Formats: sequence, C-alpha cells, structure tokens
Amino acid sequence: RIDTERLVNRLDELGRIGAIDGPNGERGCARLALTDDDRAGRDLVVTWMRDLGLIVEIDEIGNVFATLPGTDPDLAPVMTGSHIDTVRTGGRFDGNLGVLAGLEAIETVMTAGVEPSRGITVAFFTDEEGARFPPDMLGSLVYVGGMALEEALDVRAVDDDARLGDELSRIGYAGPLPAPAARFPHAFVELHIEQGPILEDEGVTIGVVEGVQGISWTELTITGRSAHAGTTPMRLRRDPLLAGARIADGVRRIADEIGGDQVATVGRFEPHPNLVNVVAQSVVLTVDLRNTSEAVLCDAEARFASIVDEVAAAEGVTIERRTLARFEPVEFDADMIECVEATARSLGHSTRRMPSGAGHDAQMLARVCPTSMIFTPSIDGLSHNIAEDTHPDDIAAGANTLLHVLLDRARI
Amino acid sequence: RIDTERLVNRLDELGRIGAIDGPNGERGCARLALTDDDRAGRDLVVTWMRDLGLIVEIDEIGNVFATLPGTDPDLAPVMTGSHIDTVRTGGRFDGNLGVLAGLEAIETVMTAGVEPSRGITVAFFTDEEGARFPPDMLGSLVYVGGMALEEALDVRAVDDDARLGDELSRIGYAGPLPAPAARFPHAFVELHIEQGPILEDEGVTIGVVEGVQGISWTELTITGRSAHAGTTPMRLRRDPLLAGARIADGVRRIADEIGGDQVATVGRFEPHPNLVNVVAQSVVLTVDLRNTSEAVLCDAEARFASIVDEVAAAEGVTIERRTLARFEPVEFDADMIECVEATARSLGHSTRRMPSGAGHDAQMLARVCPTSMIFTPSIDGLSHNIAEDTHPDDIAAGANTLLHVLLDRARI
Ligand SMILES: NC(=O)NCCC(=O)O
Ligand SMILES: NC(=O)NCCC(=O)O
Repeated sequence: RIDTERLVNRLDELGRIGAIDGPNGERGCARLALTDDDRAGRDLVVTWMRDLGLIVEIDEIGNVFATLPGTDPDLAPVMTGSHIDTVRTGGRFDGNLGVLAGLEAIETVMTAGVEPSRGITVAFFTDEEGARFPPDMLGSLVYVGGMALEEALDVRAVDDDARLGDELSRIGYAGPLPAPAARFPHAFVELHIEQGPILEDEGVTIGVVEGVQGISWTELTITGRSAHAGTTPMRLRRDPLLAGARIADGVRRIADEIGGDQVATVGRFEPHPNLVNVVAQSVVLTVDLRNTSEAVLCDAEARFASIVDEVAAAEGVTIERRTLARFEPVEFDADMIECVEATARSLGHSTRRMPSGAGHDAQMLARVCPTSMIFTPSIDGLSHNIAEDTHPDDIAAGANTLLHVLLDRARI
Repeated sequence: RIDTERLVNRLDELGRIGAIDGPNGERGCARLALTDDDRAGRDLVVTWMRDLGLIVEIDEIGNVFATLPGTDPDLAPVMTGSHIDTVRTGGRFDGNLGVLAGLEAIETVMTAGVEPSRGITVAFFTDEEGARFPPDMLGSLVYVGGMALEEALDVRAVDDDARLGDELSRIGYAGPLPAPAARFPHAFVELHIEQGPILEDEGVTIGVVEGVQGISWTELTITGRSAHAGTTPMRLRRDPLLAGARIADGVRRIADEIGGDQVATVGRFEPHPNLVNVVAQSVVLTVDLRNTSEAVLCDAEARFASIVDEVAAAEGVTIERRTLARFEPVEFDADMIECVEATARSLGHSTRRMPSGAGHDAQMLARVCPTSMIFTPSIDGLSHNIAEDTHPDDIAAGANTLLHVLLDRARI
C-alpha cells in the first residue's frame, strides 16, 4: 500500500511551483512547458528521484527517467510516468499525479524490500500539453520515434516564437540519452485523472482506459484588411475577426450535427491589432476536433474545411491552414487493459472501461510496448481549470492500482 | 500659400517615430497615446513650435497649445489642431496632418508678414484615438469640461492596466495649464484626412464636414467555465469564446439589418487562457456602433443588448457590460461650415458636404465655440491601416484651405 499522505504532500509541494490561487480557494497551476517554472518543477522532482537513489537519466528532448533496477539486468524495465507541464490555467493533478504516484509506487516497493526481476522506471515526458509548443505529447512522440528530434527542437512557441530547443537548453534539460530511445520498456502503464465527468457521474472509482480518441488540431491564419471602424462602409470590409467568429460558430455546429461524443473547440483567438476602433488586419485561431472513430473524425475535418472555404469566400478574406497535431485514435493492449481491471477489482475498487477524451503520453508508448492507463475521478469533471481536483481517497485507489500493476508486470 | 514640401517633410519626419514598414512599401505608424514613442513625437513637434518662436503651453491632461499672438491681445485666438497619437497599426496622416498643417499655416502667416488681430493657436490633444486609454478624444473632452480631470487621469490602459495620469507624468507632459480651459477659442477648425472612400470615389478634393456621427463603444467581459477541450462533453460546456463569436456575428447582423450608413465592429477579442486545448474561461471584447442619427444609434444599441442577453442565456455564460465611450452625433456651426466651403471653392477646389465617420477633437471643441472641419481624400479610403496615404496635392489643397479659413476668422 502506498503512503497517501506522502503522495498528497508531494502533489502539494510541486503544485506550489507556478501556483495560481483562485478567488474561491481554488489551487491551480501555471507551468507551461520549458518555462522557468517548468525547470523549477523538474528540479524538485529530480531531487526526489535522486534522494531515493534511483538512476536518473535525461534524453535529448528533455524526457526524464528514474529507474529502480531489477534483479535481472537483462530484462527491459516496466515503465510508468506522465508529465509535469501544465496549461496556463491548469490544475495540480493533470500529469503530476501520474509522475508522483509512480515515484510513490517505487518508494513503496523499496520500503517493502520487494525485489522484482524487472526494473521499474518512472518517467516524465517533455511538453505533453502542447499548449506552448504544439503538438501535444511532443516528448513521448520523439521518444518513440514518431517525430524527428531535429524537427521537435525546431518547434516555435505559439506566443513568443521561442524555439523549443533553445528553451530546453536554457532550462538545462537537453540531456545526453538518445531520442528516440535505443530500447523500449517491457510494458507501460500511466495513472491520470479522468479530466471528464463520467466516473464521478457513475460513482465509479477506477477508469480502465481502453484507448484514446483521435486528435486533430489546426491553426488558421485569417487575413483581411484593417480599416477604420467608423469610416469604412460595411460593404467594403474584409473583416478577419468576423470571419473567425463565424468559423468558431461553425465549429460548434460540427459537434451539434455529428452528435455522439464528437467534441469541437476553438480555444485560441488572436486578432491583430486588437483595438476597439480598428477592423482587424488578421486573426490567428486554433481548432481542436476529437473523436474515438477515425472515420467520424475525418468527417468532422471535412465539414470544417468546407466551413473555412465558405466563410473565406463570403467575407473576402484569405485563410491559411496549418496542422498543429493529428493523431489517429489509439487502442490499448488487451492484456494490459485486463491487468488494470483485475488489479483494481482485486483491491476492491469499482471499475468502468472507457476511452480517454484527452491525449496522453501512454498513447505514444502504445506504439512501442503493451500499454494501458488507469483513470481516477475528477471533481465536477473539471480539468484545464484551476478548480481541477481529485479526492485523496481516489488518489490512493489509483496509486495502489498503479503499484500492483507495476509489480505484476515487473515480477515476470 | 503654404510650403507643401516643408509640410510633407515634417509629416515624414514625425512619421519616422514609431514607423512600421510594410511588406509592400507601406509606411505606417505605431504611436499609441502616452507611450515612449508618443513622447518622442511630442518632443519633436514642440521643438518645431519653439523654433518658430510660438508661445507653447501644456495643460493638465497633456494637451499642447502653440500660439502666434494677434495684434489685439484682448481677443480670443482662433484655434486649429488635431492629435499625434496613432492606433497600433495606423498611418502617418491621421491626426498628424491636422497638427502639422496648422503649424505650417502659422509659419506661412509669419513669413508673409501678415499680422491678424486675433492670435492663431495650433494644438495637439492627448489620446484622441482612445485605443489604449478609452474614450477616444479624451484630451479634448477634458479640455472642454466634458470629463473631469481626475476621472481622466484615473483611466486604465486596455492591455497593461497602466494609469493614464502615471503615464502622462512619466513622459513629462502633465502641464500646469488648467483643464478644463479657463477661456475658449473664438473659433476652431480642424484639417483631417477623410479616412473613408467617399471623396476619392467622387473625385472631390475637399470635404466640408457638417458634423460627426454618434459613437457607442461597449466592452463586454464574458465569463464561462474553462474546461478540457478533449474530455468535456459539449452539453456541459459554458464557452465564452463561442458566446463572443456569436455576439460578433450578431453585431454584423445589426449593421446588415439597419442598413444605410450604420457601421458595427468588433475590433478587440481576447480569450483567456487562449490555448488550443482549453475551453476558455473568459473573453473580453469590444463593440463599436456608429450612426449619424441618435435615434438609429439607440436602435442599434437596443438590438445589441438583446443579442447579448440571448447569447448569454443560450450558452450559460455571464456577461458584464462597460461603456467605454458614448457620444451623440454632433452638428457643426453653420457659419463655420460655410466659411470652409467658400474658402475651398475660392481656392479652386471641388467640395462636398459630408458627415464624419470618425470621431475628432473638433466634435469636442464644437461644445465651446463655432467649429467645423476640412477633409482631404484618403487613397483607397484606408485608415487605421499602415497603407493609409494621401496625395501631396490633396495635402496642399487641405492645408491652404485651412490657412485661409484661419486668416478669415483671425482678421476679425
Ligand atoms: N492530459 C492532457 O490534458 N493532455 C493534454 C493534451 C490534450 O489532450 O489536449
Ligand atoms: N480620427 C480618428 O481616427 N479618431 C479616432 C477615434 C475614432 O473615431 O474611433
């Protein structure tokens, strides 16, 4: 059994780096990838890893691995992990829980004097959120060979044009271990908060994650013609802000029309020059479309493309498209799914099989080894919100399930 | 006759402060009110004023007045002037032309050895654009007593919360002259570029401005609930970005439905946290509605209010409203209008009476003395755009008209 208090204390301590205190007692977190606060968070977690005597390694894209060696050094270790970067107004659990619960599981194994045959590694991957440097899951994507290192190092920040590789070096986390990795784990399991409302709604403690829905991120740059808001007749306008607004409205319509679990979001919207009395010159906006079915996701993308064309023609603006991320739906390994389910039940927890609405590092690891995930409930279904929270009992249930899945896979 | 080359050279030199060079040879300007560049621009113009030996005075809100005394010191001077602040992606003529043509007119009077009975004052007023510190025409509004000095000094910047009074002191332009003024001019005339397409379309050189349309600026703060773009079912969303988009669409509909010369613009739109995979927490946006008829403008405002209510209810967001500016339509003085028209015609220029679509300092001066304006054509009708431009022949026509209107009014 893990030490819940120790785990919750570490979550609190890590959550103080980049803390956002909300007006109603919310304790959120702003630790965008490769910022100074990300460095401070990394330093803290690495200190804890070193204090436990683990072997700490850092790869070329800044992923960090801490390993408790097994009794048989020839066997590939079992891996767990997640990320510690957050969105700009995120919570203290998204990602952090999976990393610190992995650390807690290893500490529990060490304290109990158990000596598994396989090593156990806890990792945190660089830039999982993708909010500053798209795509999301960038670090684990490079780790599994899904994106070339050079391409990843050359990604630019969405807001200030900083280069990912420069930021990585600046914070001191451009490590020597090759990325992609030379050798992959025996199995991978990630504990994460659900970030949605289903487990709470149904009163279930553990989500057994069968896969991850497909993700399609597009950035649009809409160019019109800036003009005086008072003197320019409506018929002469080419207004990119209006065009962007109509596209955002159309994006919601896509979800309404497709129905089911289709989600569709415009989350970024940046007009230039962004002034009260100026018809904008340009707008940059992003669209996030997701579905568990690749065919339906493609349908959503096709609808989106026609909305863009229609709006561009109607308002006389030009629209450039750039794909920021495109991942097909992922199915996890049947045996790993069963292992998670059986382990949770054996510990007395209610379970429910479910897809993940969010992207996760596990979906990248699934390309190279048997993988699954464990979800714990999110209060009010909230995440990417400073009010994100998970009950300590659920944290304990998730972390103990993680511990026993790791032990099951590490013992041979 | 004014010296066109000298005037165009001064416009060029002032335009180099905060210059924005466009990809197609555009020469734009970014000199937002009370920034370092505004200070540099002010310093340059004040140096020119002093070099001519004019009496330079600065009032408590930073308006600058340079006077050539008349032969009869008991008579109130005739005033001209405009502003030198610009929007973030503005041109070199908006405002600047009126100030530098006023200076040029005075220099021409001095060189010619003419000695009018009344003094001639050229002024530039603080923060005419209102793009950084709303409302627009803030400096001239305080000058005529339409806004209390203390209230104006306490206005906050739209983007960085800087206080207007602090910025004014910082750039060294909080002067000693009381605002509102103790004594008002005998008459006021302002030369300005049209900033719209009408004069160019009709091939007319001089616009004789009969009045200014009413202006209504509102800032909305829309608050929803930030959430994860991948995990949050559509039915649980309260998305302020979508609500803002629907309001922007509705604002365009207001103009379409009212028709005529109704203009309606959303120019600022700022979501928070503004990230690809986060349903926004809040959006701040601005709406600019204008009409020459107060009744129609009120109708537009009423339609806007119901759109806001409908969207708020439909998306479950809360919306706060704040009035940033509200000015009724203004009618200029009949005699001043006739004087501008007769003067322009006597110089051989074609004229057209017209309302102004943009707000101007003249509309504030109209509250305290007989006032009118002179418009010169804008190439392609563009303004608040770095491609803003006016032909030197038109500049000469406008400045010579200004010179002779000033002389007409100053001679008694
Ligand atoms: N777990 C999580 O929030 N991942 C961020 C990537 C995404 O799903 O947008
Ligand atoms: N002339 C001018 O552009 N004034 C700015 C105020 C406004 O009309 O928005």
